[in-house]
Amino acid sequence: MSDTEFDVLAIGDAVVDVIAPADEALLRSEGVPKGSMRVIDWDEAQRLYARMGPAQETSGGSAANSMAGIAALGGRAAFVGQTGSDQLGTIFAHDIRAQGVAFETPPLTNDITTGRCLILVTSDAQRTMNTYRGASEYLSVDAIDPDQIARATIVYLEAYLWDHEAPRAAMKQAADLAHAAGRPVAFTLSDIACIDRHRPDFRALLESGRVDILFGNEEEARALAGRTDLDAAVADLASHVDLCVITRGARGAMAVQDGETVAVPAVTPRAVVDTTGAGDLFAAGFLASHARRRPLKTSLALGARTAAEVIADYGARPLGKLPHLIDD
Amino acid sequence: MSDTEFDVLAIGDAVVDVIAPADEALLRSEGVPKGSMRVIDWDEAQRLYARMGPAQETSGGSAANSMAGIAALGGRAAFVGQTGSDQLGTIFAHDIRAQGVAFETPPLTNDITTGRCLILVTSDAQRTMNTYRGASEYLSVDAIDPDQIARATIVYLEAYLWDHEAPRAAMKQAADLAHAAGRPVAFTLSDIACIDRHRPDFRALLESGRVDILFGNEEEARALAGRTDLDAAVADLASHVDLCVITRGARGAMAVQDGETVAVPAVTPRAVVDTTGAGDLFAAGFLASHARRRPLKTSLALGARTAAEVIADYGARPLGKLPHLIDD
Repeated sequence: MSDTEFDVLAIGDAVVDVIAPADEALLRSEGVPKGSMRVIDWDEAQRLYARMGPAQETSGGSAANSMAGIAALGGRAAFVGQTGSDQLGTIFAHDIRAQGVAFETPPLTNDITTGRCLILVTSDAQRTMNTYRGASEYLSVDAIDPDQIARATIVYLEAYLWDHEAPRAAMKQAADLAHAAGRPVAFTLSDIACIDRHRPDFRALLESGRVDILFGNEEEARALAGRTDLDAAVADLASHVDLCVITRGARGAMAVQDGETVAVPAVTPRAVVDTTGAGDLFAAGFLASHARRRPLKTSLALGARTAAEVIADYGARPLGKLPHLIDD
Repeated sequence: MSDTEFDVLAIGDAVVDVIAPADEALLRSEGVPKGSMRVIDWDEAQRLYARMGPAQETSGGSAANSMAGIAALGGRAAFVGQTGSDQLGTIFAHDIRAQGVAFETPPLTNDITTGRCLILVTSDAQRTMNTYRGASEYLSVDAIDPDQIARATIVYLEAYLWDHEAPRAAMKQAADLAHAAGRPVAFTLSDIACIDRHRPDFRALLESGRVDILFGNEEEARALAGRTDLDAAVADLASHVDLCVITRGARGAMAVQDGETVAVPAVTPRAVVDTTGAGDLFAAGFLASHARRRPLKTSLALGARTAAEVIADYGARPLGKLPHLIDD
């Protein structure tokens, strides 16, 4: 058993996914590459929403999905993220709490709305994401509770939040508080466009020693390291952190620590229904296990199995509890 | 071709469905029979929502689902329903318009929120519905545009809206305007509890001659007629309307007009995924065809096929266009 209240506390975007089928022509006329993620402003979000087909709404956000995954596995998770005082914010808060995640960030009291991610799903099951971040941009240091940070085994930060000054300051403060309490800080690279926007900053963050555990996929590792050779890229990143965890899609996942590399194969999902959230849920499985001090290989394997679970269902969060995964 | 702008104009609840998995214990502790529909107030909706698991949101409403179905079939549909000035109202309006349905009812300008239906899905795929009607209760005669009514081949009314004075008056006015323009009025019995609440009123409505086409299932027909024998019940109802259309689940559907009965078998769905919306989509198929003056048997068959389509997918509205159904 752990001496902390939470296995993981995450700070990330609080957004509701708005998911609609779309044809290729819409993507072409919008000029967005299929499968990409971009950040859009309010006017753009309104314009694009008007062009989208009938949609369904579900709570999302990368780190929030990961915390929902940890709770579904029977782990103890907390989330810090900024909603607005509106119905989407109520939906976000309800869903993450109903999943069993501690979520105490008060909504904004002004009229800034909760963020949303407009997701265009083409017939080949690929998802193109257009994120209006809304209230998430206004997450501030006030949302960081030092006592809560100190009660978490791992603090997990999302690169997506790096775009704006206030949440950046909040994440840095959380990292410093975690370290002051002797807790490791994990950071996920989120996506390639995000790295393109902030590569020098992310490099500096690694070099500052604020990050102990780094998560990314192969493409993100190459981009941040500035190397095309994966081994060289991972070796570079691993030299700045205690633990570097890289997902490799169908090739599984690997972790590098103290110069040693551990790898696991991918787990074949029951069905390939929707790959959204696979990275988020890999992180959930890995962190849930790693926070309980399991061996790296066990944690990688749980990550791979949890990712396979979410791939087999529609949406980016597990549909139910996954307690069987954490127990063995 | 028709001389009207719309095949069907419907008046009904404007609600967003909030769908979450639930276990039997929750239903027992709430004291609600599995598979039932009940109307709840704001406090009850708040309390129940807090007990529900992580949910997804999709636009709903019985008659609204039917209009979405007509549009998906390539028909021309309009919808009149009352939303609030809130995000759920924006979602409802977006979804129905994005489906191709004309929807022009302005949102309320006070702080009454858009209605929602809290749907508890048990592991046997049954759905228990808890409707907080919200703004829908405030639909008024002001929302009825006489010119728009006159431009619809059929005006379709939903019994669910009968509970409150304002929408009742709006529906009566719409019926009178339709008749003044020489258009038939269709009425769907919605559900058994609704009939229990309003049986004398519904009988009087039929006897007043305001309804030309009556939709219901077997149980609803028996309840409204007050007879346990289905043939006797249908004969009674049919004596008050021009056309009586009865759905019979796995036994198909039948229509009675001028003393003649026409029946079709049920269509076997590709898969039985979710029966929610089957009745709504049967009405969509029937009405889309009947408005184009097709034979009753053709219209019943299109209703059965459209119902089978929605049963094969998750949710109460078709996920895409269904143009192949109306063309043959």
